[in-house]
Amino acid sequence: MKFNFEDHPHRRYNPLTGEWIQVSPHRAKRPWQGQVEKIEEEQRPEHDPDCYLCAGNTRVGGEVNPDYKDTFSFQNDFAALLEDIPSGEVNEHNGLFRAKSERGLCKVICFSPRHDLTIPEMEVGGIRKVVDLWCKEYTELGERDYINHVQIFENKGSVMGCSNPHPHGQIWAQESVPLEPAKKAVNQKEYFEKHGRTLLSDYIKVEIEQGTRVVYENEHFVALVPYWAVWPFETMIVPKRAVSKITDLTEEEKDAYAVAYKQLTVKYDNIFEVSFPYSAGIHQAPTDGEDHPEWHMHMCFYPPLLRSATVKKFMVGYEMLANAQRDITAETAAARIREQSSVHYKQREL
Amino acid sequence: MKFNFEDHPHRRYNPLTGEWIQVSPHRAKRPWQGQVEKIEEEQRPEHDPDCYLCAGNTRVGGEVNPDYKDTFSFQNDFAALLEDIPSGEVNEHNGLFRAKSERGLCKVICFSPRHDLTIPEMEVGGIRKVVDLWCKEYTELGERDYINHVQIFENKGSVMGCSNPHPHGQIWAQESVPLEPAKKAVNQKEYFEKHGRTLLSDYIKVEIEQGTRVVYENEHFVALVPYWAVWPFETMIVPKRAVSKITDLTEEEKDAYAVAYKQLTVKYDNIFEVSFPYSAGIHQAPTDGEDHPEWHMHMCFYPPLLRSATVKKFMVGYEMLANAQRDITAETAAARIREQSSVHYKQREL
Ligand SMILES: O=P(O)(O)O[C@H]1O[C@H](CO)[C@@H](O)[C@H](O)[C@H]1O
Ligand SMILES: O=P(O)(O)O[C@H]1O[C@H](CO)[C@@H](O)[C@H](O)[C@H]1O
Repeated sequence: MKFNFEDHPHRRYNPLTGEWIQVSPHRAKRPWQGQVEKIEEEQRPEHDPDCYLCAGNTRVGGEVNPDYKDTFSFQNDFAALLEDIPSGEVNEHNGLFRAKSERGLCKVICFSPRHDLTIPEMEVGGIRKVVDLWCKEYTELGERDYINHVQIFENKGSVMGCSNPHPHGQIWAQESVPLEPAKKAVNQKEYFEKHGRTLLSDYIKVEIEQGTRVVYENEHFVALVPYWAVWPFETMIVPKRAVSKITDLTEEEKDAYAVAYKQLTVKYDNIFEVSFPYSAGIHQAPTDGEDHPEWHMHMCFYPPLLRSATVKKFMVGYEMLANAQRDITAETAAARIREQSSVHYKQREL
Repeated sequence: MKFNFEDHPHRRYNPLTGEWIQVSPHRAKRPWQGQVEKIEEEQRPEHDPDCYLCAGNTRVGGEVNPDYKDTFSFQNDFAALLEDIPSGEVNEHNGLFRAKSERGLCKVICFSPRHDLTIPEMEVGGIRKVVDLWCKEYTELGERDYINHVQIFENKGSVMGCSNPHPHGQIWAQESVPLEPAKKAVNQKEYFEKHGRTLLSDYIKVEIEQGTRVVYENEHFVALVPYWAVWPFETMIVPKRAVSKITDLTEEEKDAYAVAYKQLTVKYDNIFEVSFPYSAGIHQAPTDGEDHPEWHMHMCFYPPLLRSATVKKFMVGYEMLANAQRDITAETAAARIREQSSVHYKQREL
């Protein structure tokens, strides 16, 4: 018997984080009697008078949203990070009790005034405006002296803890570089110093040549299931040019980014013909005022669905206490995404 | 304005993993319009003819469960790890594509023949038999040459991906030491070499003196919300003596462990008067044949509920892409658990 990666349990290494993940290719076959998710495919109105993100409506804090036409951002009324706090620090008992104040701020980014849309259902032009707003926010937030990291992300779908279906994302900006980008910074730096090229330039070169994990590609961007993916249909959108932050993209690249973002999410929705839930976010250079040629920006998508529109992958016991684990291979997942139509299932001609 | 940990956002350091977590004490106040969980408090029969874990029933693979009286273990019919695989390895393109075969095996541990019970509803004597079975499995699995780590864990509740309410846990045993215990090994070793005592001996000494994060204590064990807890009501059960693995506990300590395990889970159930979901598991020395005086075994509980029996904490966008984050302090959570009755809500006299 010869070892092969389609059938036998193995571990794969994530060179960005330096961590291994457990792959159990044969396991998707087990029967499922556990929790199933609700599908909420109600028809939503274009404008919902009760939605605190719709144009013209009043938010909890009493503020009134402007009559915005494409995108709109504001400070989160229930921010996890605050700007106006005193600083403080604790370090006691041989470093066993360490704490530090953390300044920051949280913003909400409305993608569109249309309450009934999601990214895959929006026009590319509208998505491009989202990219522009991200650039503006990354610049403005990053310019504050004390802000060293700007995390742009979206929780899509109620299964991902999203409490309002109005298309929106968030930005949390803060003093410290959080754990996930910090791990990626270390490994990208080491690779760049050794090879003089970014880790992801070398990586996507091989991926594009091989094609097995690529799900979408255009002139400036590639979308793929990383070799070391954890979530069942995890993907990354990566610019082909080694760009360290979103604001370094050219106008043409930003257009190509919007197209890749739409195409990937259309394919996602088509897999189970349901609005595909995920958390997505951009990993890019810190805003510490330094140059970061080692950083190659990329957008990560972590979708939880595994077997159907209602059965997700649970990252529980073993995964929480021991190690990230997946039940299908990256290659199987990539084939499944790639083969999907580039036309959204709701927009197909009958 | 002076900084204080009850009101201001801050980060805390986990000396076991070497990672920081984000604490946002003020945030539990935000309103919740998102997903709510189902509560399944149906009356279950003592024996369910359709349950593949009940005594005397036939499992998917055709095997018949014995007529067991207390505990019972068997190899998982849908194991994520397999013993009988060839070995293989890949390391290509500057280490960007690395994979390795991983041998192991997965077992299921039935805690009781009673289909209708859970740990907090079981007698201490029955729980003690679970501890004994864990010891037996840790020894037998660990003795296999190629097994270097034995992960004992339980997923409790459908919200934690548990697909059968029959009280049971799992063991995944494997070649490599998985990520979470590997991180803890490094930091415990460093601490032990520097101070000549285990990290957790020094830590629990301070916790027991201060008392603010302790939720239960007996002669041999303490249960507490760690200073660096991530999950809302996260706790650890730690032996007071520096014991590196479960098999090193004395008979008396094993009894005290069973009592602590029951008392903690009774308090959990009493918080929202619902069977409290969690993933729990034991972190202890690897089974690599070496002595590990630096390892101080402990059992971790990661429960997802936050605000009520139906609203959990979502570890999504920011948490997945950036950093672990919590919405209440460890001290608030500890007070809430500690104040619960030691009598299970279902067993209270009317
Ligand atoms: O083996 P089970 O109980 O079917 O599966 C459950 O626990 C496993 C170990 O934590 C997870 O990998 C699965 O996602 C979860 O559904
Ligand atoms: O800020 P929201 O959308 O209310 O909250 C959601 O996203 C946050 C950031 O990932 C998480 O901390 C919350 O648990 C989740 O419910």
